[in-house]
Amino acid sequence: MKHISRDDISQMEKVPRLNLINSCTGYKSANLIATKSIDGQSNVAIFSSITHLGSNPALLGFIMRPTTVPRDTYKNIRETGYFTVNHVTQNIIAAAHHTSANYELGVSEFDKTTLDEEYKNDIEIPFVKGSPVQLYCKYVNEYYIKENDTIHVIASIEHLFFDENLEHKDGWLQLDKGNVVTLNGLDGYCLPQLIDRFEYARKEVPTKSFYQK
Amino acid sequence: MKHISRDDISQMEKVPRLNLINSCTGYKSANLIATKSIDGQSNVAIFSSITHLGSNPALLGFIMRPTTVPRDTYKNIRETGYFTVNHVTQNIIAAAHHTSANYELGVSEFDKTTLDEEYKNDIEIPFVKGSPVQLYCKYVNEYYIKENDTIHVIASIEHLFFDENLEHKDGWLQLDKGNVVTLNGLDGYCLPQLIDRFEYARKEVPTKSFYQK
Repeated sequence: MKHISRDDISQMEKVPRLNLINSCTGYKSANLIATKSIDGQSNVAIFSSITHLGSNPALLGFIMRPTTVPRDTYKNIRETGYFTVNHVTQNIIAAAHHTSANYELGVSEFDKTTLDEEYKNDIEIPFVKGSPVQLYCKYVNEYYIKENDTIHVIASIEHLFFDENLEHKDGWLQLDKGNVVTLNGLDGYCLPQLIDRFEYARKEVPTKSFYQK
Repeated sequence: MKHISRDDISQMEKVPRLNLINSCTGYKSANLIATKSIDGQSNVAIFSSITHLGSNPALLGFIMRPTTVPRDTYKNIRETGYFTVNHVTQNIIAAAHHTSANYELGVSEFDKTTLDEEYKNDIEIPFVKGSPVQLYCKYVNEYYIKENDTIHVIASIEHLFFDENLEHKDGWLQLDKGNVVTLNGLDGYCLPQLIDRFEYARKEVPTKSFYQK
C-alpha cells in the first residue's frame, strides 16, 4: 500500500491532486442537471455529487461551488426554483462530459452537444431526452459549507419518471438495466453490473441474497 | 416512462418508497466507516453517502441520522474526532451489508462478520483489512439539515493509503482494478468496469478520450 499524508497532498501539483482526491472516496453518481433561466435559456451540466438525503420526504442534496463552473445551473435554480436530474447512460458519456467545458454564461450545452431537450406534461424545465431515470426537483434550501466555500443544495423530488424495465415489484430501480454509468474521479466513466442484492440485515442472521433459494 | 408524483411517493408503503427513492438518484459510493470508542471498542458500518467535497484542502462529507443506526459511528467520531473510510470490494459485500444490522450499542461488527481490523503506523482507529483504498479522516464540522433531521458531517483526509496497482501517473486511482463496488439503492451491490476516460473538457473542442490516438 502506498501512503500519502495530508502534507503530501497539499504539496502535490494541482492536476494530480484533483485526480487523486476526486477518486479516493469511491464511485460517484453521474447526473445531468438541466435548468432554464428566467428568460427561457436552457442549460445542462454534469454533476457527480447528487446524493440521496431521505425518502420521506424524498430529498436529495448536491454540492456546488457557485462562483465557478457551472454558474448557470445555480443562477437558474435560484431564479426558477426548479431543475431536473437525468441519469447519464453509456451512449451519452462523451456529450455528458463535454457539458463541463467552460462555456460563457447563457450558452446552452444542449446546443453544443448531441444532448436533446425533452419536455413533459406542463413542466417548463427541460429533461435530457433518453435518460432512463429523470427527476423534477424543487430547490428547498442550501447550507453554506465554510470549510471550502461550497454550497450544499437541498431539493425535493416533485416528479419521478423512469423506464418501467428498471422497476422491481418492491420499488427498486435496477440501474444496470438502463446502462446507467457511475463516475470514477473527474473523468472516468464506468458501467456497473449487479453482482447481488441482499435482504434487510438482521443481527445474528447471516446476510441473505434476494436470489438465494 | 412511468410517472410518479410527490403525492404518489408520500402515499407509497414504506419499503417500496425506501427502495425507489434510494435508487433514483444514481449509483452511490460503498464505504465502510470504522471507528473506535473512547474506551477502545471498535465499530464498523456501511455508508453510501460519502461524497467528495473538495481537493485543497482534501475534504469529504457524508450524511448521518444520529438518532438511528449506526449510532456507534457518530458517537465514536464525536468522542475521538477520527474515523477511517474503507472501500468495499466484491469479495466482502455480504459482510459489508451485514454491518447495517441493528446491533446493540457497543457491539463490534468486526466480531459479527468476517471483516478484520487492520492497524497502521501509530493510528489508533482500525482500518478494514484488505480494502484497496483507505482514508484516515478527521472530523471537522457538521451541518444540521433541518429538512429531514439529518447531519452532514464534514471531514478532512489526514492520511490516504491505496493499492499501488490502482494508481495512474496523473494521480487517478482506477477503482475497477481493485474490484471496488458501488451501491444501487439500499442493497444492490454492483461491480463497475471502466468504459472510457476523457480529457479535460474545453469549449468548442470535441470530447477526447485519454486512450484516443
